[in-house]
Amino acid sequence: MKEIRIGILGFGTVGAGVVEGIQKNGALMAERTGIMPVVAKIADLDITTDRGVKVPEGVLTTDAMSVIADESIDLIVELIGGTTIARTFTLTALKKGKPVITANKALLADHGAEIYKTARENNTGIYYEAAVGGGIPILRSQRAGLIGNRIESIFGILNGTCNYILTRMEREAAPFDSILADAQALGYAETPPDLDIDGIDTAHKAVVLASMAYGAPVPMAACATKGIRGLSEQEIVNAAELGYRIKLLAIIKDNNGAVELSVEPALVPEDHMIASVHDVFNAVFVKGDIVGDTMYYGRGAGRMPTGSAVIGDIMEAAANKLNGGGVPVSVTMMLQKDKLAYCSAENIEKRCYVRLCLEDKPGSMAKVMTIFGNHNISIASVVQKERHKTGYAPVVILTQKAKESEFVAAMAAINALDVSCCEPVRMRLEDFE
Amino acid sequence: MKEIRIGILGFGTVGAGVVEGIQKNGALMAERTGIMPVVAKIADLDITTDRGVKVPEGVLTTDAMSVIADESIDLIVELIGGTTIARTFTLTALKKGKPVITANKALLADHGAEIYKTARENNTGIYYEAAVGGGIPILRSQRAGLIGNRIESIFGILNGTCNYILTRMEREAAPFDSILADAQALGYAETPPDLDIDGIDTAHKAVVLASMAYGAPVPMAACATKGIRGLSEQEIVNAAELGYRIKLLAIIKDNNGAVELSVEPALVPEDHMIASVHDVFNAVFVKGDIVGDTMYYGRGAGRMPTGSAVIGDIMEAAANKLNGGGVPVSVTMMLQKDKLAYCSAENIEKRCYVRLCLEDKPGSMAKVMTIFGNHNISIASVVQKERHKTGYAPVVILTQKAKESEFVAAMAAINALDVSCCEPVRMRLEDFE
Repeated sequence: MKEIRIGILGFGTVGAGVVEGIQKNGALMAERTGIMPVVAKIADLDITTDRGVKVPEGVLTTDAMSVIADESIDLIVELIGGTTIARTFTLTALKKGKPVITANKALLADHGAEIYKTARENNTGIYYEAAVGGGIPILRSQRAGLIGNRIESIFGILNGTCNYILTRMEREAAPFDSILADAQALGYAETPPDLDIDGIDTAHKAVVLASMAYGAPVPMAACATKGIRGLSEQEIVNAAELGYRIKLLAIIKDNNGAVELSVEPALVPEDHMIASVHDVFNAVFVKGDIVGDTMYYGRGAGRMPTGSAVIGDIMEAAANKLNGGGVPVSVTMMLQKDKLAYCSAENIEKRCYVRLCLEDKPGSMAKVMTIFGNHNISIASVVQKERHKTGYAPVVILTQKAKESEFVAAMAAINALDVSCCEPVRMRLEDFE
Repeated sequence: MKEIRIGILGFGTVGAGVVEGIQKNGALMAERTGIMPVVAKIADLDITTDRGVKVPEGVLTTDAMSVIADESIDLIVELIGGTTIARTFTLTALKKGKPVITANKALLADHGAEIYKTARENNTGIYYEAAVGGGIPILRSQRAGLIGNRIESIFGILNGTCNYILTRMEREAAPFDSILADAQALGYAETPPDLDIDGIDTAHKAVVLASMAYGAPVPMAACATKGIRGLSEQEIVNAAELGYRIKLLAIIKDNNGAVELSVEPALVPEDHMIASVHDVFNAVFVKGDIVGDTMYYGRGAGRMPTGSAVIGDIMEAAANKLNGGGVPVSVTMMLQKDKLAYCSAENIEKRCYVRLCLEDKPGSMAKVMTIFGNHNISIASVVQKERHKTGYAPVVILTQKAKESEFVAAMAAINALDVSCCEPVRMRLEDFE
């Protein structure tokens, strides 16, 4: 039986999950693969707090650098988080030729290029399945099962907090603020919640998925990012009446050789698989040019699901190291090209949901429709409900595909109309066609 | 750039798909992995029919054994199907130390033990992602991403033909026979359709999934198999009224160390992800002890989706061979144990749907309920609709969990009642709890 000796940096939620998973199923993994995983060292600044998992004496240390330097340790698991010391430790380990496993999406989104290149230069690997989609083996599916496919598009629900909030807003027709407060009280959302609800966490993950799909590190700036903060439950109710649900989507597409990339709340048809992803679950819908539509679903966060992904990477890194496999596909796929071409946001064609508030008088709708027509935007459906005595009428419009620049201009023109009583609300509609 | 030379046996639907996929994206694969796949030889008895894909002169041959013997060929792709010559070719290649990639679920279900052992003895690999779930990277997810998990259960929709028939029966409230005939006319079902509609194809795949989950080749005899032949649309309508859909499920569970394994039509809650799998799509729902619930979805058959899975295996086998990686996890996971313990069918606890036809007179229902009670079967819901002038009433019952042996005895007792007008119909209800 071969043995692989693991050094873990960071003994927080995920770190403890990894240790617990290896203690529970290490023997089973050894039986399956012929490699026994051994947690040799765990470094954390705090080594006194009870993490709910017992480790043998001598395993815990406060000195991360000594773990990286320890010649008896085969691979390093970085679970510290953040982009400062995590970066230093990761680069140091890679420069020593040690494979690094990480769950740190922010680190990869901000410093991916440097990290992948350092791994390649030192003939070793960086593995990061846990950085996207928690326990879902989505990156592994992309770089192994779907390796023969040009990726046409990826749609991801990648943030459990946002999906939980949207699910509850939909079920309870409740406002964003009260559900967010509740989610924070229940521990499903952090305080402050910005990273999640402003879409930044989703964008970190989208950038990693896009990098792998198209073969070069993608900068965060290439991802037009909008979260769910301030989303009105009125939009969710309107969407439901029209047969749609609202999800915070990462949208990645090959647009004639240019990468389209965004994070935004979008209407999705309620009978599409991705609309059935509720609560804290994540899902990634991948369309390959050979395989067609595929989807991957599971828990996107949490001690054990994320631990499961880290363990999968540990065993792959171990096999690769023991075989002398060199630079793995998780590195080579990220460095196929120096850089990518991106779609400019204004040229992206999309369908939209638009909610207007119009004065209840003759000619209001005609003015609006004229503006849509002038901007080459076809209307797929219009719903105006009768309102008594308010003097204004809410109008909900679903459009056909049109250019973003036309939508921007049309919304400005409508907003300037004297019959428009409030700023138009607009959201993408994604029908996956 | 390294090169891997591939010999393909069988130039049918999938064989042509593999060649087309490599021609289309071979350069991309090389860029991603550093390995260029080259289709060196293709053997088929018929090398004159146009397969919709052009191959260079000298590549086609009618002599499969010469391809296996060719020292310049690194790995063999078996796409002949069947369990006779496919077995011979597979074993011959493995004995020469050549990795074999196959999409042949029947071969693995019938001769898996021999094949895995031959691979191990000859320090090489057999790869078979395409045998289960077509283009879905489900086996790879199981043996890599989820390697740290004890598998608690797997539920699979593994036969596109059956799922297509069930989807249309549900949408159109149409009878089985007419939809089957239509599916045959459209090319979605074969003639004869037995392998699909009697659940045998699903069982072949279930056996492979169970073998990998629990670590030893599982014989077909261990899989209690029931297909959808003769399923009445009445059951589908009744299920829908109660909030369920009927799917042909492969059910694999760890039942306190004994493997529970069956293929059967079952009611699933309509709001469960697996209920949203329509038409020819497949999906596999895997519950791991660490990762929790995960699901994998995609096209379960067809030239290109299956080709995609074969290509994924080719690239993995290539990397493994070039690295001198020896016996892969796709072999070691199948040979952890000599044999497994299985649950006997009569001890399995399950919920059921039962449809009865009772004489419309006082005491009918009481007699039935007494029988259920005597057999320790609790009732979850009962629906009896009013019928005028027929003299009998259809009764639909959903039960709580009870032992299969109790269900069998209860059904016999009910059938023997003078008030029972037709044989009870019974089906499993799976609520994934």
